[in-house]
Amino acid sequence: MNKREGVLYILSGPSGVGKGTVCTQLRKQLLNLKYSVSATTRAPRAGETDGVNYFFKSKDKFEKMIQNNEFLEWANYVGNYYGTPYSYVQEQLKEGHDVILEIEVQGAMQVRERIGKDGVFIFLVPPNVAELKRRILERASETDESMNQRLKVMEKEMKLIQHYDYCVVNDDLLYACQQIEAIITAESCRVERNKIKYEQWL
Amino acid sequence: MNKREGVLYILSGPSGVGKGTVCTQLRKQLLNLKYSVSATTRAPRAGETDGVNYFFKSKDKFEKMIQNNEFLEWANYVGNYYGTPYSYVQEQLKEGHDVILEIEVQGAMQVRERIGKDGVFIFLVPPNVAELKRRILERASETDESMNQRLKVMEKEMKLIQHYDYCVVNDDLLYACQQIEAIITAESCRVERNKIKYEQWL
Repeated sequence: MNKREGVLYILSGPSGVGKGTVCTQLRKQLLNLKYSVSATTRAPRAGETDGVNYFFKSKDKFEKMIQNNEFLEWANYVGNYYGTPYSYVQEQLKEGHDVILEIEVQGAMQVRERIGKDGVFIFLVPPNVAELKRRILERASETDESMNQRLKVMEKEMKLIQHYDYCVVNDDLLYACQQIEAIITAESCRVERNKIKYEQWL
Repeated sequence: MNKREGVLYILSGPSGVGKGTVCTQLRKQLLNLKYSVSATTRAPRAGETDGVNYFFKSKDKFEKMIQNNEFLEWANYVGNYYGTPYSYVQEQLKEGHDVILEIEVQGAMQVRERIGKDGVFIFLVPPNVAELKRRILERASETDESMNQRLKVMEKEMKLIQHYDYCVVNDDLLYACQQIEAIITAESCRVERNKIKYEQWL
């Protein structure tokens, strides 16, 4: 039987927009979707299982994987590496499973560079950017310098929206998830993803 | 206020696939969608209203409109002209309404040529081509010659699927309509259709 290849979805958006919450909800409602497992060099926490929560790697091993171009994207946060091994994603896609990556915008840009139009990029937008700015400005505990820094980062991250295919406003969680579900349904109907099928029809 | 422009959907597919039935169901469930009104030179039937069922035109007027390039697509069936006036569609789109055209594949190809990527083209596929062949063959009134002709036409029409954006199998009516609804939702989330919005965010 000829199977359709899976589709890779990249869910991203500015820091603090609620990517994790949306992804957790999607896991509940879209059972056929596979979630990419990241690799990391940080130590496993209590209850974390290798291959489920993360692929735990030594620093040496991780750096070798970087050299071998084995990551779809990777980054170093406060001394630890985090990355998405391409092989796991490719296996899932070949088996016909749709895969979703929930990653930061910098990582998403690496993925876009690497796979181009082969991925479907969804940008999660805060309900109201002005409101988010106001909230950042209102935080009394922050120094002017750090507030300005955060605003600049947010603006820079928001501008990356132009490299995405879809944008979904994360105002109401269930509504946002409904829209993402509609995007996944629509993408499964794209003619170029059904070539095998319609060649059989003809 | 800056409004998003509407999106033009072209729903098409081989003769006999059930475009009309799908469109009637969509009218019930998608109340915000506008349905294009065709122009024709055939005489109004009892109960038909100008501007609702059709724009009724004289042959002279219709031919002048063809010369003036006022149709998105047009054709002549058994002595009568049928066509989609572009002005009506454009007005609706400018007002921010999504518009759906339900037309034959030949007409859809004219629209694709005229507006290119500005339209979203949905191809309705028979649940299986063998089934459609059976339906064509069942029409007892037809001679072998005319049946063969129709089968050839159907195959030719099916091949046009490659020019479409999406394909939806018309197996279960409600499921097909759900998929079209998902396509419309997804298209409304496309970044390039939300430029005005995200420029305001920034």
